[in-house]
This record gives sequence, structure tokens and C-alpha cells, in this order.
Amino acid sequence: MRFFDKLDDRVRACNSILCIGLDPDSSKLPQGLGIMEFNRKIINATSEFCCAYKLNFAFYEAAGAEGLNALKETVKMIPGGIPVIADAKRADIGNTSRAYASAIFDYLGFDAATVNPYMGFDSLQPFIERDDRGIFILCRTSNPGAADFQDLFTSYSGSRRAIFELVAGKADEWNSRGNIGLVMGATHTDELSLIRKELPEMPFLVPGVGAQGGELAAVVESGKTFNPGGLIINSSRQIIFASSGPYFSSAAAEAARSLRDGINSCR
Amino acid sequence: MRFFDKLDDRVRACNSILCIGLDPDSSKLPQGLGIMEFNRKIINATSEFCCAYKLNFAFYEAAGAEGLNALKETVKMIPGGIPVIADAKRADIGNTSRAYASAIFDYLGFDAATVNPYMGFDSLQPFIERDDRGIFILCRTSNPGAADFQDLFTSYSGSRRAIFELVAGKADEWNSRGNIGLVMGATHTDELSLIRKELPEMPFLVPGVGAQGGELAAVVESGKTFNPGGLIINSSRQIIFASSGPYFSSAAAEAARSLRDGINSCR
Repeated sequence: MRFFDKLDDRVRACNSILCIGLDPDSSKLPQGLGIMEFNRKIINATSEFCCAYKLNFAFYEAAGAEGLNALKETVKMIPGGIPVIADAKRADIGNTSRAYASAIFDYLGFDAATVNPYMGFDSLQPFIERDDRGIFILCRTSNPGAADFQDLFTSYSGSRRAIFELVAGKADEWNSRGNIGLVMGATHTDELSLIRKELPEMPFLVPGVGAQGGELAAVVESGKTFNPGGLIINSSRQIIFASSGPYFSSAAAEAARSLRDGINSCR
Repeated sequence: MRFFDKLDDRVRACNSILCIGLDPDSSKLPQGLGIMEFNRKIINATSEFCCAYKLNFAFYEAAGAEGLNALKETVKMIPGGIPVIADAKRADIGNTSRAYASAIFDYLGFDAATVNPYMGFDSLQPFIERDDRGIFILCRTSNPGAADFQDLFTSYSGSRRAIFELVAGKADEWNSRGNIGLVMGATHTDELSLIRKELPEMPFLVPGVGAQGGELAAVVESGKTFNPGGLIINSSRQIIFASSGPYFSSAAAEAARSLRDGINSCR
């Protein structure tokens, strides 16, 4: 089954475009709890409210062997039917990128992955060739440094366009398998609108709502499209670390429900 | 000790600017040999000929738990005094990049890391702030796709410059701690010369010699500088997979010695 079909199905089934980021920052975990047990409780409490989970590899890698085991086991513990996205932002030369794709899709079992476009087509090809998996290419990210290179203007093909617009254009050009989406930060909705106008059907994964400060209504308005899973909005810390007390999982459930409802009221 | 001082010392001590890439592609390992045992034999056979080792994370991650254990253990088995570079090409938003830096420098114990500039300054800051470690920012890579975005021209500050030139300029601007270098592919020596002219003292890590086809004399001529460790040239497959037979480690030693001598005859 194609990734974006699986995502569409899940969005329909749960009536949510909320993606929850399982980013178990060790400095924020409830005392005495390992990553795996934390994730299990968060997943049990929140799965009905989300269309997907996204795991950022950095927090698992920082926890060493325990973290890497938790990364693999967490993918397994997520209920079938809920797509799981590897937020790994990988890319390298061809034969090396193939090893990354194999690690993420085959060894770890993820449904989709985020990738970094700086090294160009052949660095993403081993991911794109996997037509049963989804690929989200970083386009305009939500952090301040995004302005350093992504926003620079070029005179490509005679028209004045920013680098992130060219990345979006290339992503569309490379999308013959229909398995490519874009990571579009929520902090600058002008960019979101611009790319949505150019690519009406391209799926967007939008991080930066919540802890990073993107405004919900503007994001939904700017990014919306026809496909159910064509716009998914990620929140991590605001949900999973809603409380650090003993009832952290019900606090996470409440935060997830509330954000899902908030998003749905804008759709 | 600063990373580039350690690298300079090592280059002086072994009279070599050859960096060996320990990239244990599972499809190429001698039959029946695990990554760790392969690396141990390659390191024992080649360490006298190289100024540094570079480990590309993709091949370790693709091998799952065994690979990740081998990644950590390999860093430990490399003789003290030889800098070890994490070729991980990481970057993410600030708090996440901090976790990556911690994984690479603290948990795994690498001396330096490669990073991807697409997300801009704050995505690299947690690496750059570690003034005891080295950071190699991807600038102009050696793969065909490098042309997709890195070579595009912008009209930044009024002058017509390619994205990779702007990355080099920013790297220099961010280098107040003197711990930044650039990854400059060997396949296009014009770009190498261009950046060397602009940044006479910036350290370059040059992959793409050997299997990727960069020409040695042109690379050394284009990239040379004053500091002993200011230009290091990486080769991976050509050395570690010089033979797949029972004498693979002596074949690797011979390939390393020969490439070191070839490079030295151009210096």
C-alpha cells in the first residue's frame, strides 16, 4: 500500500490531521522512566487523536544503545494502520544514502522519512525509489536559520525564486511515484501559501506548531488541500511533555485531543 | 586540545594527509567477518599511513544493533592521537541538533563531525559551540546532484555567487572558535580552487578521490594551504575493499601506503 494512501485512510478513520512527535528529550522525561516505557504510555494515551507519529532520531541517538533499541521497539508498538515517520533528515551520496534508506525502512520498519535536499537528486533517489514508502523533503523549515540559505533568491530559469521554491519545484518534478511530500515550517505562513499555490496537491508535513509558535488557523488556511492526508500538522513537546507529573500520559491525551479539536475547528 | 591542532600534529607525525573512510558496506565485507573484526584488522593494517579516520554512519546504521555497537567500539579501538571524524551529515532545529551533537561527541566520542548547512546557523550552532571538536560543513559535494542546488547562482549582496560559495562565506563568518572546516568534493577542482582563493586558511576535507574519480594532483594543487591539516583527502572503498580475499588487510595497507605516497608526491 502506498504511504500517502495509508495516511489518507488513517486521517479519514480518526478525523485528525495531528501528527504527534515522539521526541523523548532525556532532560524532560518523568523521573525514573525509560524512553520505551514513556513512549508506550504516551502512545496508549494519544493514539486515538493522531493520524501519524513522527520520531526524531536525535533524541534516541543521544540516549545511546538504550535509545536505539527504543527507536526500533517504538515503531513496533505503534498500532497498525497509524503511519510512522522517521524524522532523520538524512541524505548522502548514492551508495551511502541507500544504506540510510535500508536502515530506516528495512531494519527499523518506518513508513516514511524526512530527507535533506542540499546534496540533490541522487542523494535522495534511494529513498524516492521505494514507492511503498513516503519521503518528506525539507523545503522551508521553521527555525531562524532557515533564512540563511533557503530564502536566498536565485535567477533560475530567468525568474526570481527563493531556494526553497526551487526545492519544492524539484520535489514535484521527482514525484513520478507519488510518494513525495514537503516539510514546511509553520512559523512563516506566507511561504506555506506560496508553495501551496504552486503545488495544489503536494502533501505537507508542518512542524513548528506549539513549542515553535506557528499559528494554527493561519497554518490550516495556508496549507489546506483536497487529500485528507495532504496537510498534517506535527506537535511534539506541547503534547508529550504537557505535564512532568505522575499523570503525564493523561495530560498528553488531553493536550492531543485539544490540539486535534483546535485544528479541526479550522479545517 | 583543539581539533585542528590535533589534526595538524597528526599530519606532522605521520607525514600523511590521507584520511581513511571506514565504511563497512555489508555487501562488500569479506565473508564471515563482522564489522568490528573487519575494522580492527583494517585499522591495525593502515593506521601508520593516515592522518585521520572517517566513519560514515549510514553503513553502521544499516547493520542495526550490531552496527551501532561497532560504531562506538571502532572509535575506541583507533589509536590515540589519530582524530576520528563522524561522517553523519546531521543538522536539525536547535534543541534537536544539540541531541545529535551530544550523541556524536559525548556518547560515541568522535573528535569531529560533518554537518549539513541547509537549515542554517542555529541548526549547526550546538556543534560549533563545542570548541574542542571539529565541524566540517558540507559545501560543494562530489555527487552529480550537487548541481541541483549547490551550484545555483544568487544575487546575494549584489554579487553573483553560487550557493556553495555563500555556504563557504557563512562558514568563515561563523568560525570565531577556529573549529570549522568544509567538505569539498574532489570531482570538480574548479570549485575547490575558487573557495581556496576566497578562504586561504579554511581546512578542507576532500572526499571523492578514488572510487568517485577525483584526480589527485589537481586536488592537491587546488586545495593546498599552509596548515599541515588544512587539506585532508579521504578515500574509503579504494582502500578498505582493495581486496575481498583472505589478505584483504595487507591489500588495504598497500592501497593506503600507495595513495599516501601518491598524495605526498603532489604536495
